[in-house]
Amino acid sequence: MSAFLLNADNFADRLAAAVRAKGTALCVGLDPRWEQLPAEIKARHGSTTLATVARAFEELSLRVLEIVAPLVPVVKPQSAFFEMCGPAGLLALQRVLQHAKQLGLLTILDSKRNDIASTAEAYADAAFGGVCIEQLRQPVWDADALTVNAYLGRDAIEPFIKSARRDGRGLFVLVRTSNPGAGQFQDLVCDGKPLFHHVASAVGDWNRENLGKCGFGDVGAVVGATHPAELAAVRQLLPEAWFLVPGFGAQGGTAADVAAAFRPDGLGAIVNSSRGITACFSPNEPHWEAAVEAATKTAITQLSRTTTG
Amino acid sequence: MSAFLLNADNFADRLAAAVRAKGTALCVGLDPRWEQLPAEIKARHGSTTLATVARAFEELSLRVLEIVAPLVPVVKPQSAFFEMCGPAGLLALQRVLQHAKQLGLLTILDSKRNDIASTAEAYADAAFGGVCIEQLRQPVWDADALTVNAYLGRDAIEPFIKSARRDGRGLFVLVRTSNPGAGQFQDLVCDGKPLFHHVASAVGDWNRENLGKCGFGDVGAVVGATHPAELAAVRQLLPEAWFLVPGFGAQGGTAADVAAAFRPDGLGAIVNSSRGITACFSPNEPHWEAAVEAATKTAITQLSRTTTG
Repeated sequence: MSAFLLNADNFADRLAAAVRAKGTALCVGLDPRWEQLPAEIKARHGSTTLATVARAFEELSLRVLEIVAPLVPVVKPQSAFFEMCGPAGLLALQRVLQHAKQLGLLTILDSKRNDIASTAEAYADAAFGGVCIEQLRQPVWDADALTVNAYLGRDAIEPFIKSARRDGRGLFVLVRTSNPGAGQFQDLVCDGKPLFHHVASAVGDWNRENLGKCGFGDVGAVVGATHPAELAAVRQLLPEAWFLVPGFGAQGGTAADVAAAFRPDGLGAIVNSSRGITACFSPNEPHWEAAVEAATKTAITQLSRTTTG
Repeated sequence: MSAFLLNADNFADRLAAAVRAKGTALCVGLDPRWEQLPAEIKARHGSTTLATVARAFEELSLRVLEIVAPLVPVVKPQSAFFEMCGPAGLLALQRVLQHAKQLGLLTILDSKRNDIASTAEAYADAAFGGVCIEQLRQPVWDADALTVNAYLGRDAIEPFIKSARRDGRGLFVLVRTSNPGAGQFQDLVCDGKPLFHHVASAVGDWNRENLGKCGFGDVGAVVGATHPAELAAVRQLLPEAWFLVPGFGAQGGTAADVAAAFRPDGLGAIVNSSRGITACFSPNEPHWEAAVEAATKTAITQLSRTTTG
């Protein structure tokens, strides 16, 4: 894999620098849902076509970005809510990712992609550095990191790693997810340990190939806040991996639940909150932006007590 | 789950009828790659922007659809190759799916989606019946079936099943994939049997909830042609599930390798060939459409020897 290691700053170091600069590990998830949009945004765009819905999702997302950009290091758009608006939604997603980058935010595209060989390459090139066809060099999603599903095995993840390392991007591999039924397969015991330990072990191998100066590598793990014991177990298995921790806030995970994800210096995990921030208000609330700002600051305070205590 | 069962024709029966009508189980995969396009299509559109590349992918796909529509029951566009062109590529994908439907073909959207709760619903509604927002009822991809990854567990698959059954669509769950490294996790032995048997068993439970008149259900399995022993094992575990069998042709699977996927009456599996059909010619071949037609007929003949022998 040494040919994959290039000069671009390591994603792990870029993430560590961003977390240090903002003084928080909070990641804001952008999961726009029509029924949770502010009434003013719904009224301005309307739900006449998928394109108008997509523009409403874009406006909500861009306005949230303006609020949270001074406060947090990273945002995580959820691809599904943009894809449900078809091509117009993906144009909105592209603009949201571009705007986040312009505001100095790191971006994690949460699309849980998975495939093999040249198909995996196509997903990865689109997510990261972009498409190279003859003279055309064109970014598509241009995200800093992508979530991926490893069920297909090592050779299905390697094209994603190769593409990510070409210019300092990262991956978060699903290890132990935040949903109630996550254990159905992930907890099955194989060779004396649960499946998610096997996936974590593979993540460790990939991650150690390219450690940054901060001591972490560029292939991280998705581990849900809703299962604190498993979170602590995966941290033991993966001392050098960044964690992306969903399930904080609306899904029920608390700051105490995520404490085990962090290294003593407060690095090593980013904790995502989506609905707890972008849908923390009633649709008719006129001062919804103030509510988003307050919810962001509250989440930062909650997390800070955890990571320093 | 009984609330999910509606009046629309069962996907399993629609697929059985289509296979019987065309007399073959061949599925043509649409995985457009720039370097494999006919020179005339490349020259007409050029690779100036992602939009021109997307239009080239669309032209190749539409012309292949015209050739194969009289010959095969089903086509499988690979989402990744359209997504790599960004929003313009997804517009092309939408048109390809629409055109396939107009030609009477069934469509499997191969995007291996996976997520939880309302996020899974968003992917599923987009794939199948479409988005419902206030007065808006709008199809997005409008595919007959979708490939999904079950690593996240039962509650992450159920939103896909619910959305599919609302109007007679189907799923193909990744069980044993066709790549060389598929076994890294899929073959791990848990409770005395490999992980892919556990996933197959869950597919069996979901599938038996909604069997059609043909004896098969609407939640099928993806099982690679490149692992014939595993294919035979999954058939034993899932006598009532449709299989989507990739890996035939370019990936090395032969007609003999896929024989075990079929029920004695020749139903129960569809066998995908992508590059073996849509990239069976040299880019400078002027009669590439004749080559595509010939390759399709050859694949049909090879498969027919298997399913009747």
